[in-house]
Amino acid sequence: MALEFDLIETYFKPLSQGLSIEEVGIGDDGAVLSVPENHQMVVVTDTLVCGVHFPLETSAYDIAWKAVAVNLSDLAAMGASPGGYSLGLTLPDNDQAWLKGFASGLRAITEQFKIPLIGGDTTKGPLTLTVTAHGWVPNQQAILRSGAQVGDLICVTETVGDGALGLKVALEQLDKGFSSELSEIEKQALLSALNHPVPQLAIAADLRGLVNSAIDISDGLLADLGHILEQTNRKQHKLSAGLVLEFGAEIELEQLPLSSAVEKYITQTHDWSPVLSGGDDYQLCLTLNKQNWPQLQKIAQQYGVRITQIGRVVEQKGIHCLMSGKPVADELIKTTGYSHF
Amino acid sequence: MALEFDLIETYFKPLSQGLSIEEVGIGDDGAVLSVPENHQMVVVTDTLVCGVHFPLETSAYDIAWKAVAVNLSDLAAMGASPGGYSLGLTLPDNDQAWLKGFASGLRAITEQFKIPLIGGDTTKGPLTLTVTAHGWVPNQQAILRSGAQVGDLICVTETVGDGALGLKVALEQLDKGFSSELSEIEKQALLSALNHPVPQLAIAADLRGLVNSAIDISDGLLADLGHILEQTNRKQHKLSAGLVLEFGAEIELEQLPLSSAVEKYITQTHDWSPVLSGGDDYQLCLTLNKQNWPQLQKIAQQYGVRITQIGRVVEQKGIHCLMSGKPVADELIKTTGYSHF
Repeated sequence: MALEFDLIETYFKPLSQGLSIEEVGIGDDGAVLSVPENHQMVVVTDTLVCGVHFPLETSAYDIAWKAVAVNLSDLAAMGASPGGYSLGLTLPDNDQAWLKGFASGLRAITEQFKIPLIGGDTTKGPLTLTVTAHGWVPNQQAILRSGAQVGDLICVTETVGDGALGLKVALEQLDKGFSSELSEIEKQALLSALNHPVPQLAIAADLRGLVNSAIDISDGLLADLGHILEQTNRKQHKLSAGLVLEFGAEIELEQLPLSSAVEKYITQTHDWSPVLSGGDDYQLCLTLNKQNWPQLQKIAQQYGVRITQIGRVVEQKGIHCLMSGKPVADELIKTTGYSHF
Repeated sequence: MALEFDLIETYFKPLSQGLSIEEVGIGDDGAVLSVPENHQMVVVTDTLVCGVHFPLETSAYDIAWKAVAVNLSDLAAMGASPGGYSLGLTLPDNDQAWLKGFASGLRAITEQFKIPLIGGDTTKGPLTLTVTAHGWVPNQQAILRSGAQVGDLICVTETVGDGALGLKVALEQLDKGFSSELSEIEKQALLSALNHPVPQLAIAADLRGLVNSAIDISDGLLADLGHILEQTNRKQHKLSAGLVLEFGAEIELEQLPLSSAVEKYITQTHDWSPVLSGGDDYQLCLTLNKQNWPQLQKIAQQYGVRITQIGRVVEQKGIHCLMSGKPVADELIKTTGYSHF
């Protein structure tokens, strides 16, 4: 078996290119990186465990892509421009074919988002990956969860529910009758949403100053929107000495942007859980003042990203799902977001 | 079981104190951190796997301490001042007593080295920890492995071999006869070196500009000194168009600073492997111009850290171990450093 240093030389060092002559990538105790002036650093971290965050059968290429992608999605939600990422890779064995596929996946996302691998550690053990990524925002311009305002429009990028339905496809949990109604293209699109999520990092910098709050839908739409409301409420409590406004949200289910496969699934099963609580979507949920909507639409067109209004921030506590303008029965929406335990 | 957000609130959020009002710690998609002017960022990462990097029986307190300590040791080797750290924690279950102990260990090292926890991710799976830490160095002042010069003195901090011998104590691998010769205090000191290593971060900033190269002895003295020589040789190859100098090192075994327990062990077994290739020591191996030796001694006294000369960088390729000035038989030193596979 190759020694760790061969592993690093062969597979990982080529991914640390793009650093300047004053910077140091892989090969020392740590990386040395220059920092842009008048910027703050954003740091995010996410761990993926085999069999928990991706099915056993997932390809090495997809595992590598996803481990980085979920972090870039968090950077995007903060409005950050990419800086670099470190990889803690725990592997059961030193399978060269697996490593080759893994390195290809890393290379693909590293090059697509122009974010170098700056360091890492490879260890022996059950397959687990922790990526820590950093990015940059101009001072005081990070987009926070806590910035929502009453009256804000709530929007999401692209479609919701594909990651969760993709997991059902991967695990062959779908009813056979329904499964046969999906085209091969639809199934592939669902699996791609699960295994090869594309973080909304391209538009992140343009969202700064335009949206009031953002989060990525990794835990599920209701749970993540709940995080925005919770953080916003906390901030209000801190700021206000007296009367406290409790923020809530109204979501119009008909407005939720769905892929054809997810739409078919809901029509047949009436099960909204992949959309409302599925998670694993890596789309952004944004809130913004409605006067900024035209500008947001311009950005969406410029980058070819679909952005859809799905509701608004209201003064009434809690998240209220509406259909045809009327509240939806609680049992439909009594789905909580992904809990890590 | 408590949900992940309760875990974070109860155990981890209190460790992100010390951030300024312009900064954001735990609770958003990522942390937002201000950066000191005219500084570069140093980023390090290390993964610990239960049963590989620490015995199963290790206490939660010690696991937490060590996961952070090994990273601070890497920051120290770069001459960095502490910035913050992220934790990717994979846990088999949500054991409140374990988590309480774990949080105490994190708190202890967080407070001792004044480095806040800035983010993390907790997931379910086999016990694995990845810490990514960052620190700061004034522009172009990071201490690199590649800076050694022929004629440099080679030094180490404190004593060498205690971590590796501590592992033999923990795993009850020591010969009973020998084991009975160790006092309780000696055994505890060995276990402490293994489970509660104290990174040499306090003196790190003072080493900048004073030493030519540094590395921490986590993979074993010979292997890590080898990394210094390898990186230095690479740099020389890049810099020189023509004649290339191959750097090597001479180490005088009698000069190696040993604890009483390690000294007893070598006297009885003639086994130098814990000292030369054991690793897990988290002491620094430094090379410096001999004219800087008095200043280094001053710093050592100021911080109460023992620093010992053990050899010098020479023009002869390879690492040559000497005893009474004579080369030591190869079989004694044919011990390679810790390999992660």
